[in-house]
Amino acid sequence: MPLVYSFDHAHRKPPKDMKDLLGGKGANLAEMTSVLKLPVPHGFTVTTDACREYMRGGWPDGLDHELAVHVGSLEQKMGARLGDPNVPLLVSVRSGAKFSMPGMMDTVLNLGLNDRSVEGLARSTGDERFAYDSYRRFISMYGRIVLGIDGEAFEHPYQEVRRRSGAAGDGPVPASALRLLCTDLLQVVRDRTGRDFPQDPVKQLRGAVEAVFRSWNGARAIAYRVREKISHDLGTAVNVQAMVFGNRDDNSGTGVGFTRNAATGENVPYGDFLVNAQGEDVVAGIRNTEDLEHMKARFPAIHAELLGIFARLERHYRDMCDTEFTIDQGKLWMLQTRVGKRTGAAALRMAVEMTEPTGTGKQSWKISKREALLRITADHLDQVLHPQFASSGEPLARGLGASPGAAVGRVYFSADDVVAAAARGEDAILVRSETSPDDVHGMMASKGVLTSRGGLVSHAAVVARGWGKPAVVGADAVRIEGRQFSVNGTVVREGDVISLDGTTGDVLLGAMPLVSADPPEAYHTILRWADKIRRGTLSVRANADTAEDARKARELGAEGIGLCRTEHMFLAPERLPVVRRMILAAGPDEEQAALDELRAVQTEDFAALLREMDGLPVNVRLLDPPLHEFLPDVGELEVRAATTGLTAEESRLLAAATAWSEVNPMLGIRGVRLGVLKPGLYAMQVRALLDAADRVAAEGLEPIVEVMIPLTVSRDELALARSWVEEEIARHGREPDTATRSGLRRLRVSIGTMVETPRAALVAGELAEVADFFSFGTNDLTQMTFGFSRDDVESRMMPAYLEAGLLPRNPFETVDPDGVGELVRMAAKRGRKARKHLKLGVCGEHGGDPDSIRLFHDAGIDYVSCSPYRVPIARLAAAQAIVGADEPGSK
Amino acid sequence: MPLVYSFDHAHRKPPKDMKDLLGGKGANLAEMTSVLKLPVPHGFTVTTDACREYMRGGWPDGLDHELAVHVGSLEQKMGARLGDPNVPLLVSVRSGAKFSMPGMMDTVLNLGLNDRSVEGLARSTGDERFAYDSYRRFISMYGRIVLGIDGEAFEHPYQEVRRRSGAAGDGPVPASALRLLCTDLLQVVRDRTGRDFPQDPVKQLRGAVEAVFRSWNGARAIAYRVREKISHDLGTAVNVQAMVFGNRDDNSGTGVGFTRNAATGENVPYGDFLVNAQGEDVVAGIRNTEDLEHMKARFPAIHAELLGIFARLERHYRDMCDTEFTIDQGKLWMLQTRVGKRTGAAALRMAVEMTEPTGTGKQSWKISKREALLRITADHLDQVLHPQFASSGEPLARGLGASPGAAVGRVYFSADDVVAAAARGEDAILVRSETSPDDVHGMMASKGVLTSRGGLVSHAAVVARGWGKPAVVGADAVRIEGRQFSVNGTVVREGDVISLDGTTGDVLLGAMPLVSADPPEAYHTILRWADKIRRGTLSVRANADTAEDARKARELGAEGIGLCRTEHMFLAPERLPVVRRMILAAGPDEEQAALDELRAVQTEDFAALLREMDGLPVNVRLLDPPLHEFLPDVGELEVRAATTGLTAEESRLLAAATAWSEVNPMLGIRGVRLGVLKPGLYAMQVRALLDAADRVAAEGLEPIVEVMIPLTVSRDELALARSWVEEEIARHGREPDTATRSGLRRLRVSIGTMVETPRAALVAGELAEVADFFSFGTNDLTQMTFGFSRDDVESRMMPAYLEAGLLPRNPFETVDPDGVGELVRMAAKRGRKARKHLKLGVCGEHGGDPDSIRLFHDAGIDYVSCSPYRVPIARLAAAQAIVGADEPGSK
Repeated sequence: MPLVYSFDHAHRKPPKDMKDLLGGKGANLAEMTSVLKLPVPHGFTVTTDACREYMRGGWPDGLDHELAVHVGSLEQKMGARLGDPNVPLLVSVRSGAKFSMPGMMDTVLNLGLNDRSVEGLARSTGDERFAYDSYRRFISMYGRIVLGIDGEAFEHPYQEVRRRSGAAGDGPVPASALRLLCTDLLQVVRDRTGRDFPQDPVKQLRGAVEAVFRSWNGARAIAYRVREKISHDLGTAVNVQAMVFGNRDDNSGTGVGFTRNAATGENVPYGDFLVNAQGEDVVAGIRNTEDLEHMKARFPAIHAELLGIFARLERHYRDMCDTEFTIDQGKLWMLQTRVGKRTGAAALRMAVEMTEPTGTGKQSWKISKREALLRITADHLDQVLHPQFASSGEPLARGLGASPGAAVGRVYFSADDVVAAAARGEDAILVRSETSPDDVHGMMASKGVLTSRGGLVSHAAVVARGWGKPAVVGADAVRIEGRQFSVNGTVVREGDVISLDGTTGDVLLGAMPLVSADPPEAYHTILRWADKIRRGTLSVRANADTAEDARKARELGAEGIGLCRTEHMFLAPERLPVVRRMILAAGPDEEQAALDELRAVQTEDFAALLREMDGLPVNVRLLDPPLHEFLPDVGELEVRAATTGLTAEESRLLAAATAWSEVNPMLGIRGVRLGVLKPGLYAMQVRALLDAADRVAAEGLEPIVEVMIPLTVSRDELALARSWVEEEIARHGREPDTATRSGLRRLRVSIGTMVETPRAALVAGELAEVADFFSFGTNDLTQMTFGFSRDDVESRMMPAYLEAGLLPRNPFETVDPDGVGELVRMAAKRGRKARKHLKLGVCGEHGGDPDSIRLFHDAGIDYVSCSPYRVPIARLAAAQAIVGADEPGSK
Repeated sequence: MPLVYSFDHAHRKPPKDMKDLLGGKGANLAEMTSVLKLPVPHGFTVTTDACREYMRGGWPDGLDHELAVHVGSLEQKMGARLGDPNVPLLVSVRSGAKFSMPGMMDTVLNLGLNDRSVEGLARSTGDERFAYDSYRRFISMYGRIVLGIDGEAFEHPYQEVRRRSGAAGDGPVPASALRLLCTDLLQVVRDRTGRDFPQDPVKQLRGAVEAVFRSWNGARAIAYRVREKISHDLGTAVNVQAMVFGNRDDNSGTGVGFTRNAATGENVPYGDFLVNAQGEDVVAGIRNTEDLEHMKARFPAIHAELLGIFARLERHYRDMCDTEFTIDQGKLWMLQTRVGKRTGAAALRMAVEMTEPTGTGKQSWKISKREALLRITADHLDQVLHPQFASSGEPLARGLGASPGAAVGRVYFSADDVVAAAARGEDAILVRSETSPDDVHGMMASKGVLTSRGGLVSHAAVVARGWGKPAVVGADAVRIEGRQFSVNGTVVREGDVISLDGTTGDVLLGAMPLVSADPPEAYHTILRWADKIRRGTLSVRANADTAEDARKARELGAEGIGLCRTEHMFLAPERLPVVRRMILAAGPDEEQAALDELRAVQTEDFAALLREMDGLPVNVRLLDPPLHEFLPDVGELEVRAATTGLTAEESRLLAAATAWSEVNPMLGIRGVRLGVLKPGLYAMQVRALLDAADRVAAEGLEPIVEVMIPLTVSRDELALARSWVEEEIARHGREPDTATRSGLRRLRVSIGTMVETPRAALVAGELAEVADFFSFGTNDLTQMTFGFSRDDVESRMMPAYLEAGLLPRNPFETVDPDGVGELVRMAAKRGRKARKHLKLGVCGEHGGDPDSIRLFHDAGIDYVSCSPYRVPIARLAAAQAIVGADEPGSK
C-alpha cells in the first residue's frame, strides 16, 4: 500500500469516505479535487498508515522515496521547484486526522523557502516585501513547531521591527527591515538549537512531516482526545499542498465560510473574511474580521462563485459544510471543507429543515427523518437544555455569542488559575485576549470563556462550541491588564463574579439568576420523531426519588421511574434521628416502634411519587446502602471523645458506628444482605409501598409498582427476599380493615432484582426463575467488574489511565463493551432463556449515555433509566440505536 | 414412587448405593437384610423423598396409608402387634440421613408401649421390671424428643427412684418402683403439655416420624451441616425397626464394633460392649464399657459369629465397617453398619494395607492404589500433619486418646463459656463429664475436648475425631465440681491452662511445647502414589514469601512457588521506615534514594528465596497492596493530633495517610494501578529480582523466575507493565559491569498476570496476547464476583447465609462453581484460544481445597499454589481430581 496519495488520485471509492486512511482534511481535499473538480491547489496526502508505522517503529521505510516522487509530480504540475533559486515552489504542511482536532495539530506554511529561493520568490513575484514576509513566517513557524523553539523568541524581534518601522495593524513593514529580521530569526534558530536552520527543502519537508506525526502524541493532543473520546490509535495524516497567498496584495485575501449559520442553523451562508492576510490570521482572531457581505461588496464575482461552491458542497455532502478559502490576486482557491460543527440549536434546526427540499428542480435535495435524527448528538441536546439567564440586564460589554448557554463564575486570567479555582470547587470564567491550544485545560475546567479578540471561528469560539461551553468572543471593549480587566473605566479584578450569555454575547457584572432552558421547536420535532421510532421497542424511564423529580422526569418524557432509591427518603434531616433510633434499638420493640414511624413517612413519600406517575410504572429499590451511612463519622466522634467528650447519646452512636463500620463498604453489608440481617426493614418498606399504592388507587389513579431487591448474588437469596415481599402482599390483601380493598385489586406489583454483581450476571438463569424483571445497576457492576472503587480511582487514577490509553473510555461514562457489556449480554441471554418474557432494564448513569444505550439495545434491553435531565438525550439515543447507524459524532 | 420400603424389598440395584433415597442407615440395613442375609431385626425405611415432601408442604398425602401397610406387614412377620395388650410389638424409630450426623438426629426406642401393652410385655416376657423399665425409657425419650419436654423433667424423678431404691450402677430398680415412676412420668407429660401422653401406637409412630423430619431443620443439625458442608436440601430418612433388647438379662447385651482399629488403622477388630444394656447406654458413655476380648470370654460363640460377620462386611464393602449389634437373650442381632469413620493415621494405614490381600483364597480381597487414594480426605492428612507435643511430661490424668493431635488451652466447663472465650481470642479446652449434641458449638470452638466418662465411640470421641480435633475421653480420675475439676487433690480452676494429647490420652497441667507432626510411613506411600498419578498433569506449588517458607514448602513437596507476595518484605519492621520515606519523598531524588535502599534489601530476600528453590519456578508478584497499608492509621493520628499533638514527622505521615486513604481499598489504587502512578516502584522490584537471580546463578544454581503483574483489567495496561519488566531485563542484560553475565544467560524469566478481577477473566483473550501465564487470584476474584468484602461479610454475614442456605458453601473456602468457577473456565478457554500454551495457575486459598482443585483441574489449570502446610493435601487432591471420581468424603 502506498504511504502517499495525490489529491487527484483515482481512488476506487469516494475519497470523502476514506478518512481512516487520508484523515478528514485529506479526504475532503481529494473529494473536492477529484470528484467535485473545485479549484483546489495541487498537493498530496501522507496517510495515517505512515503515521502509525512511524509511531511503532520510527520513520517508515520507503517514505522518503514516495515523498520525492510526489514532490516531483507536484513540481511538474506547478512548473516550479522546491527551493528553486528562480521559480521556487512553496508548500504548506498540515496535519489532518480522521476527526477534526481544532488548533491541536500544528501547521507549517511557506515550506521550501531558504536563503536562495527567497530571492527567487522576490524576483518571480516582483514583491520583495512579500517574499521576506513569507520567509519570516516560515522560519518562525518551522522554528516553533518543528524545532521546538518558544514562539516568543520569534515574535519578539518581529514586534520590535514593526514598532521601529511604525507599522500599524498588519500594514507594510519595509522589505529591507524584513530581510534583516529573517537574518535575525535564522540566528535565533542557531542560538537556540546550536545548528543552522535547514536550507535543504527535502530536509525541511521531512522535518515538518515528522513534526506532525510527533504532535499526535503531544500532551495537548492526548488531552483533547481523552476529552473527546477519540482513540489514540488512529494517527494523523499529513497534507502537503502548493501554497496560494491571500497576503499578496489587496486583491487577495482569505476567509472561512459556513454554508449555513453554524450558531443558529438559519439557512444563510456565514463567514469571516480578511483582505491581504493568510489563513492563520483569521483563525487566530488577531485581526477582527469582516463578514461575507463586506466581501461581496469588494469581490462581487468571487462572492458569487463562492456561494455557488457552497451550494454544490451542501448538495454533495447533504449537510452544512464549513470551508477555508483564499483569494490569490483575484483567483479563488478552496483550501479545505468539511461537514461543519454547529451549536445544538443549529443542529436541530438544520436537521429538521433539511428534511424539506433545499434548492429547486433537479438540483434540489433533502434528507430523511431518520438521517435527521442521526445528525443530532447528545451534546446538541445538552446545549439547548442548558440554563439561560432569567433576565437580560444591562451588559457591561457585548461580544459575539460564540457558544450558547449562560455561565456565572469568578474571573481568572490564566488557564492554570482556572484549573486551580475549579479544583477548589469554584465556578470560574476564563478571560483571555484570545485563546490558544495552551489554554485548553483552562477552558475545560471553566464554566465559560470570554475573549476580547477573535470571531465566531476563532479558537475560543470553535473549541467552546464543540464542548457546549458558553463563550463570548471578540468583546472589543474588554481591556485586560494583568490580573484585572476594565470596560470603560469599570474594573473587574481576579476573583470577581461575572455572568456570560453565550447566546447573545452579553457580559454582565455579578451573578445573574439562571433559569432552565427553553428548547426550540425543532427540539420537540426531533424528539417526536425519535419517540415514534422507539415506541414499543426501547422505553426511557427516569431515576427519581421524590415527587418533584418524578414530575420533572414526566415533563421531559420519561415513561416511568426505573429507580427510586428509598434511602434518599431516609436521609432527610427530620428522618435521620428515627433511622438512628431503629439502628440503636435495644430490643425488637424499640426497633419496631422506629420502623413504624419510618413506615408512616415512607408511605407519604411513596404516595406522592405514585400520584405523579399515575399509570406509569414505578420501580422502588428496597434499602441499599450500609447502615453506617446513616450514622455519624467514627473518626470525628473519636476525636471529640478524646477532647471535649461525648454525650450518652453520642457514645451510643459511636458504638453503633464502630460496630457497623466497614473496611470496604461497597462490598459490605448492603442491599439484600442487610435485609437478611434485619428482615423487619424490608417488610416495613414493602408495607409502606403497598399502603401508598392503595391510597393512590383509592383516589382513582392507577399505581403500577415494581419492587426491586438490590445486590443479590444467588437464587436462594432472591427467593427469600421475594418471599418477604409476597408475604407482605398477602398480609396486605388479607387485612380485613383495609378500607380501600377495591383499589388494591387494581394494583399490579412485580418483583425483580438488580443485576449489579458479576455473579448475578453469571447466574442470571437461576435468578430469572424467581424474578419478574432484571434491572442492571451498571455503576456497581462496573465497579466490581473492574475492581474500581469509583470514590477512589475515578479522580486519582482515571485521568492517568485515559491519557496513557490504558482504557479507551472512562467506563463510568460509557459502559465497557468487552467486560461489563459482556456480562450484560450474558445475563440478558441467560435470563431470557429461563424466563422468556423477563423484563430487562438499566438504571444508573449509563442509561443516559448514547453509546451505552446502543449496546443495551443490542443486548435486548426493554428500557433504560437515567436522571431526569438526561431523559431527552436517552429518547434520542434510543431511537438512534434502533435506526442502527452510527451517530455522526461517534468515534 | 413409594414413600416407604421394607428392609427386604427387592431393589433393582444394591441398596447400599441408594443412600440418596434410603439414607445411610436404611441403605445399609437393607443391604445387610436383603443382600448379605445377616441377622437384622425386620423393619422398614421412610424415604428422604417423604421428608423433602414434608418440608415443602407438611405431612405427605398417602404416607399414613403406606405406614399402616408396612406396620401390618411387620406385625405379621413378628407375630406381634403394635400396642397389643398380649403380645405387643415394640419398634425403634431412628433418623438416617445420607451422611452420618452423629448425635444430631434423635432416636425413639420401645415405641408401641402404652398403659395396656406394657402389661402385655410384662406377661409375655415374664419380666415386669424389664417391661416397666422399657416403658419408662419410652415415655422419657418420646417426651423429650417428640413432645419437646426438657429431658431433666424425666431424668430427675428416675434418679430419685434409683436413689430411694439404693440402686448402684445400672443395677435393678424394683418393678413396683418403676411402675409408679411411669405413672409419675405420664403426669409430667400431662403437666408440661396439657395433654395426655399418646396411647395410640399409630399416633405415637406418626409423631416420632414427624419429629425426625422436624429435627432435620433443628438449629443443631443445621449448624452441623454448615460445618460439614452438607446440603440442607437432602432431608433424612426414618427407620422403623422391631426392637431387640440388650437389656433383657445378663445373657443379653449391646455393643459397637469396628472391623479394624479406627484410631490406629491396625487390622484388629475393636469394639465396646456392655452386658444387659441398651445401645444408648454405650454411645452416651454413661457406663464404662468392656472391649471385645471381654465379650469373647463371656460369649465365645457369639464373639466368633460377630468376627465372621465383620469379615463378610469388610469383604462386601471393601473397607473397614463400624457396626452396632445387640445380643437378645443369647441371639446376635445386627442393628447397623456403615463404612466407619477413622482417624487420619488409621485412614492412611488402612488404605495402604488394603492394597495387599485381606483374607485367603477365594475369600481374599484387596483394593487398587487408585481406590486407596480416593479413601484419603484432606481432613485425614490434616490430622497426621497436626502438631504433637515436644515431650511427654508427667500426666495429671490419663484417659483414652480418642482423637489425635495435641491441644493447649484454658479450661472451661460449658460450651457457651468456650465459645465466649474463643470469641475473646483465647485457646479454650472444653471439659465435660460427657458431651451431648448440646455441646457441639463449644466443641467446634474449642482447641480440644476432655471428658471424664465414655469410650472411643462416645459422642465426644466420634464428633471430635470427625473434626480432627484433639480429644481425651473417659478420664475417670477427673472429678468435675462446678467451675473446677480435681484429680487426686490437684484442683484445676476455670481459666487454668492444660495440655491434651489426643493420641496418648494424656492430660497435663500447664502449656506443653508443641512440635510439628511426624506423619506415618503410610502418609508418604499415599503421597508417592498421588504424585505419580498427577505428575505432568497438575502441579502443586506453594505460596511463600520467605526463604524459610520456601524451605518448608519444598520439604512438603511443593514443585515451585506460585505466589511470592513482595509486600511482605516491605512490612518488616526495619524496612517500614524506608518504605515510608519513599512514599513521603519530596521529589524524585528522595524517592529514588529510598527505592535504591529498598532494592538492596529486596535483592537479598529474593536471592535467599531463589536459592532455596533452585531449579524450581518462583513466581514473584509485584507490589499489590495500596500504599496506605504502609502508613499509620489516620484515625489514631487524628486523635493524637487533637490531644497530645504530633511530631513534624508524624504530621507528614498523617498528611500522606490521609492523601492515600481510600473508601474501598479493595477496589482502590493497588497492584498495577500503583505501578502506573509510581512507575519507579515496579522497576525497582524487577531490578532487585534480576540482580538476585544473577547472583544465585553465579553460585551455580538455577533460578527460574516468573514475574506477575497484579490486578490487571485490560490488555493495554498489561502491555505497559510488561514493557517495564522487559526494559529492566534489557537494561540488565546491557549493563557492561555485570560480573555474572554468564549467569544471566541461564536465567529464564516469564511475565504474566494475575486474573483476579472479573474483567480480566472476561477479556482473557486479549490479556493472553501479552501474558506468558495467568495465575487466578481466586480470593479477590471471589470478593469482586460476589461483591463480598471478606473483611466485612465473612464473619458478620456468612454464618447467617450458610445457616439459611442462601449459599451452599462459603465461597472463600471452596470456589463457587457457578459464578467464580464460570469465570475461571471462561478465562482459561479464552486465554488458551489466544495463546495455545498459556500456563495457567491458581494461587490463593482455594488452591489448597480439594473440591476447588477438582474444579480447577476440569478447567485445565496447570498448577495450584497454596500455603506450605496445605501442599500435601493439594498433592492428594490433585491426584484424586485426575482419577476423576468423587472423594469418599465429598458431599
